[in-house]
Amino acid sequence: MKETVLQPGRRIPANAPTIGVFDSGFGGLTVLRALLHRLPGAKFAFLGDTARLPYGSKSRRTIARYAAESARFLVNEQNAQFLVIACNTASALALDAIQDAVSVPVLGVIEPGAEAARAASQTGDVLVIATDATVQSHAYAGACRGLGLRALEKACPLLVPLVEEGWVDPSSTMGAVTSQVIRIYLGELIEQASAAGLTPDVLVLGCTHYPLLHTFFQAEVPAGIRVIDSAQATAETASRLIEPLPGLAREGRAENTLIRCFATDSVDKFERLGSRFLGQPVGRVQLVDLGG
Amino acid sequence: MKETVLQPGRRIPANAPTIGVFDSGFGGLTVLRALLHRLPGAKFAFLGDTARLPYGSKSRRTIARYAAESARFLVNEQNAQFLVIACNTASALALDAIQDAVSVPVLGVIEPGAEAARAASQTGDVLVIATDATVQSHAYAGACRGLGLRALEKACPLLVPLVEEGWVDPSSTMGAVTSQVIRIYLGELIEQASAAGLTPDVLVLGCTHYPLLHTFFQAEVPAGIRVIDSAQATAETASRLIEPLPGLAREGRAENTLIRCFATDSVDKFERLGSRFLGQPVGRVQLVDLGG
Repeated sequence: MKETVLQPGRRIPANAPTIGVFDSGFGGLTVLRALLHRLPGAKFAFLGDTARLPYGSKSRRTIARYAAESARFLVNEQNAQFLVIACNTASALALDAIQDAVSVPVLGVIEPGAEAARAASQTGDVLVIATDATVQSHAYAGACRGLGLRALEKACPLLVPLVEEGWVDPSSTMGAVTSQVIRIYLGELIEQASAAGLTPDVLVLGCTHYPLLHTFFQAEVPAGIRVIDSAQATAETASRLIEPLPGLAREGRAENTLIRCFATDSVDKFERLGSRFLGQPVGRVQLVDLGG
Repeated sequence: MKETVLQPGRRIPANAPTIGVFDSGFGGLTVLRALLHRLPGAKFAFLGDTARLPYGSKSRRTIARYAAESARFLVNEQNAQFLVIACNTASALALDAIQDAVSVPVLGVIEPGAEAARAASQTGDVLVIATDATVQSHAYAGACRGLGLRALEKACPLLVPLVEEGWVDPSSTMGAVTSQVIRIYLGELIEQASAAGLTPDVLVLGCTHYPLLHTFFQAEVPAGIRVIDSAQATAETASRLIEPLPGLAREGRAENTLIRCFATDSVDKFERLGSRFLGQPVGRVQLVDLGG
């Protein structure tokens, strides 16, 4: 299998650890992007199970099976020594199944997001926005409750398609639509929080697509509410856990890191849109068949 | 299997024909709605293959297999004597496979849409808006070309989520977002048409979700361009073909018609959103397992 070496001249130590990053689609590339900047001396293998998305509309059992197959591919065939589940649905519904399927440490996106919210909140009241599937799982509310926080969750189904359309420039006519959609969603959420007697001071972005809207959230969120990006929070936690692994170079530049990207379908869309999420070219994406 | 009889008092002749209507999701209920009004004396069985949507991101071979399984369910288990494929992707990629799988007449949504465009157009230049998957199949462009029309297609990926969010009231703040999104899409499309030297006088709505945005299109489309709804066009063609079937009552009211709805997953979402598409209650939706 050919490797996508973004800058072949750059030498990564042969024994550098490989970090496996998994998502049902390619939104999880925002988590990989945050990881690259923290661990430029690691190697990365990213798998998007694009043939079987969206996970959100499938049963827990089916999601667990798909996620376990994907995790095994990254560990057994790509030699990943650490797995980051950069997918909210799989983190919410299949983390145990993934941990059972492989023998390396596994980190999801939900616990780090909730931990970051706890660190940032004074009032203990937290707002979470995410996809419909993530909200229906109530995984963030559960993780927040476990940390002594009260969380109010809201599904914002228009935000993923707005990001995938590329309507993410705040100064454009299209960006004005995105601003207005975010204003409507946040207005509804803050009204609900007020009706429930909450005084939130943190907004958690609970979807891997949302980091591309960070500027919009900063502009639209009311004063006194801090925006927490669960992709960033996950990368921070992961890098703390990964840094002790042997062979990790201590220096390097994110754009020189060795990244191999795999998808189970729709390689074209992945290559076309992925760079926007990764913040640098994704290179050639390899098609893999997980036998689903 | 229990039947959802919307008004049990009403008598449909025992030998009234059953019309099977199939979609990957529940958007095709807009086609069923248009059929009900034309054929109130028929019985209807609707199947949404919600467990395996979206079809748009899958290969032709996989879509053909899923659609053939769904068609066999409607014909063999629900005794459908006529099939309407109320799904643009399946119509574009699997109509032959469905026709091979069953022995009853099968009608897709694309040919009727193209025929209606030919009947309405003076210039022979036609605009088509649809989902990304339908546009990538170029099925409308092909059907239009076969009728001597020139067609320019545009994917409008935000419209389905806007409909599913219910942002469809033009007088609301949310409706203002939908208006603006449609204005942007139509502006881009008309600019492309002009650059290509086309003088379009017809806009085909090539997605089963779009009839819920009909008022918006009427308001935003430039003067001199007529809006053609492929759901309506399909229902018109279907009713012409179905009317000769024996046992069809000549009278009745759409809201009294016998409808059975089936889905392969997400029955809750189907029940919650389906009525908006059907224009009347969908009743209880039965979960079926097609063994996929």
